[in-house]
Amino acid sequence: MGEPAGIGGDVTLKVWHLHRENLSPFYVLDSPKRLSELARGLSLDVPIEEIAEPAEAIGVFPDRLPVLPINLPAAAVPGKLDPTNASAVRQSIENAVEHVMDGRASAVVTNPIHKLALYKDGFEYPGHTEFLAALADVQSEPVMMLAGETLRVVPITRHVSLHDALDLLTADLIAETTEITVAALKRDFGIAAPRVAMAGLNPHAGEGGAMGREELDVIGPITDELRAKGIDIRGPLPPDTMFYPAMRQSYDVAICMYHDQALIPIKTIEFDSAVNVTLGLPFIRTSPDHGTALDLAGTGKANETSLLAAIRMASLMAQHRFSGRSVPAPTK
Amino acid sequence: MGEPAGIGGDVTLKVWHLHRENLSPFYVLDSPKRLSELARGLSLDVPIEEIAEPAEAIGVFPDRLPVLPINLPAAAVPGKLDPTNASAVRQSIENAVEHVMDGRASAVVTNPIHKLALYKDGFEYPGHTEFLAALADVQSEPVMMLAGETLRVVPITRHVSLHDALDLLTADLIAETTEITVAALKRDFGIAAPRVAMAGLNPHAGEGGAMGREELDVIGPITDELRAKGIDIRGPLPPDTMFYPAMRQSYDVAICMYHDQALIPIKTIEFDSAVNVTLGLPFIRTSPDHGTALDLAGTGKANETSLLAAIRMASLMAQHRFSGRSVPAPTK
Repeated sequence: MGEPAGIGGDVTLKVWHLHRENLSPFYVLDSPKRLSELARGLSLDVPIEEIAEPAEAIGVFPDRLPVLPINLPAAAVPGKLDPTNASAVRQSIENAVEHVMDGRASAVVTNPIHKLALYKDGFEYPGHTEFLAALADVQSEPVMMLAGETLRVVPITRHVSLHDALDLLTADLIAETTEITVAALKRDFGIAAPRVAMAGLNPHAGEGGAMGREELDVIGPITDELRAKGIDIRGPLPPDTMFYPAMRQSYDVAICMYHDQALIPIKTIEFDSAVNVTLGLPFIRTSPDHGTALDLAGTGKANETSLLAAIRMASLMAQHRFSGRSVPAPTK
Repeated sequence: MGEPAGIGGDVTLKVWHLHRENLSPFYVLDSPKRLSELARGLSLDVPIEEIAEPAEAIGVFPDRLPVLPINLPAAAVPGKLDPTNASAVRQSIENAVEHVMDGRASAVVTNPIHKLALYKDGFEYPGHTEFLAALADVQSEPVMMLAGETLRVVPITRHVSLHDALDLLTADLIAETTEITVAALKRDFGIAAPRVAMAGLNPHAGEGGAMGREELDVIGPITDELRAKGIDIRGPLPPDTMFYPAMRQSYDVAICMYHDQALIPIKTIEFDSAVNVTLGLPFIRTSPDHGTALDLAGTGKANETSLLAAIRMASLMAQHRFSGRSVPAPTK
C-alpha cells in the first residue's frame, strides 16, 4: 500500500490497467474500498477482487486486481496525511513480510511511505528498509542497490552527510557491502561470476596519495583482500571515468563510496528506469525510486514507470532465486 | 605544443588533416621538424609551413599547417619523456600567452603537458592553469569549467582530496567562482542572462539539516545573496536529480561543490565531447579533456575528438568576445 494519501494507489492501478498482460501476477495489500473509489476518481476501469489468500491472486490477476484487504481507520484523502491511518500502513508492510517469509509470496514491492505520518504513530525506524530488516530479524545493515538497464550501483553509506560518510568509510563496511552485493547478484540476478568495479573516494582515485590517502590506506587494501577471496574486482577506480557507456559494460556493479557518487550517475542516465533493490534481507524487496508525491495523488498525473520497473525487477529476481521451483510466469 | 613525447602532436596533425575545412584558422607553437617527421610516421599528408607572425596563419591555414617555430633541445621521441625539452614546453606556453595578451591571437588551446617532466626542470606550479594565471599576472584562483553539448559544470574546488574539499568550501569561494562563471557566460558564450543551478553538498541537499548543515549554513545563504545581486540562480539543489536530461535544459551552468560532483555527470554523458575551459584569465583558454597518453603517442591511435572540440569551443568563444571586431571566420 504505502502511504494512502500518496501516489502509491494511483500508480498501482495504472500498472495493472496498462501493463498486466506483460507482468507476473501480483496482489495488493490495501483497502479494496479506497482503491475502487480511487479508480473511479481516475476514470480507470480496474475491477477489484478481494482475496483471502495470496495464492488466489494467480487466478484472479488476469481479469481483476487482487486485493488482500487492509482496513483503513479513516477514509484516505489524496494529498492529505492522516496519522490515524499509520497503523494500517505498518500492517500492510508487516503482512507482506509475513507472506514472503513463509513462502506464500515470492517478493515484496513497497510503495513509498511518508515517515512524518508514521513517526507521529510511534514508528521508530530511519526508513522503510530498516523496518523491513527489523521485521525479518536481520542484524547487519541492509544494502541499497540502484539497478537500471545499463548500470547497477551500491553506495557504501546512504542517508548521512558527506562529512559523516567520510568518517563511516571503513574496510569492514566496504567488505561486508561488497560481499552481500556479490551474493545477491549470483542468487537473484543470474550472474555466475559478478564483475565488481570498486570506486575510489577522491578525485582521480587520489592519484597515488597526492589528493587523499583513502585509496592507499583503506579502499585499495580491502579491494585486494576481496580479490584474494575470489571476487572478480577492479579498483579503486577514478570515480569520474567509471560511468561512461563503454566502461559500464565492463562490470556488473559499481561499489560507490558515498550516496551521490552512486546516485548522480544512475539518476543522470536512468532517471525513470532505475529501481531500488534492498539486498541483505532474507527475501526479495524492490521499490520505485520516488516518494509519496502528495501533490500528484489522485490527479492522474503520477507516472507509473518506476513502480512498473520495480515489479518487473522483483519478478526477474524471483525467477532467478526460485528457478527449479515453480515460479508463476508472466501471464502473457 | 604540450608535452612533445605525448599525443599532442598526433591529435593536432589529425585535426588539421581531417577537419581544417570546418575550422577557424589556428597555428601551432611547436617544432616544424618534429611535426613533419611525426606526420610522415603517421602517414598523414600534412604539409607544414613555418610562419614568423601569427597573422600569417590565416592565409596559410587552408593549404598548409602554420607552425610558429619552437626549438627543441633534444629530438622528441614519442612515449619517452625527456626533461631536456621542458624549457621548450614552457616557451611554447609563454609565447602563446604573449600572443593572446597583445591581441595577435584570439584564444589559446593547450595540448596536455606532463608535470613530472617539467618539475625536473624547476617548474613550480600545480598545473598548466596556474602557470597561465601567473603568466597573465592574475591573483584570483582561476575557475575550471567543463563544457559539453548538453551540460556545463564548474567545480568549486579541483584537485584536492574530498576531505580537503569539504574544508575549503566557503561562501566567499562559492561567490567568487559563481561570479567569474556568470561573467564568462555573458562575455564568451553569448548568454545574456545565464541561469545558474547551485548544487547542494549532501544527499538530498541535506534534507533540511537531517543529513548535513552546509546547505543551511553556507550554500543557501550565499545563493540567496547572489540572487539578490541579480543573478538568475536556483538552489541548493539535490545533487543526484540535477543532471537528468529535462533538468539540464533548465540551466546554463551547474556550480558544483567538489570535483567529482561536477566531473561524474559530464564524463558519464559527454565523455568525448566535453572541453576544459579556464575562466577568470584575461584571455580565452580551452584544452582537450585528456592527458599526454604517452603509450599512444606516435601510434596513430590517439583520438582527436577532444582537441577538435576544444578548438571549436575556443573559436566560438572568441566570436562572442570579439563580435564587432573582425574575427577570422571558419574557412568554409
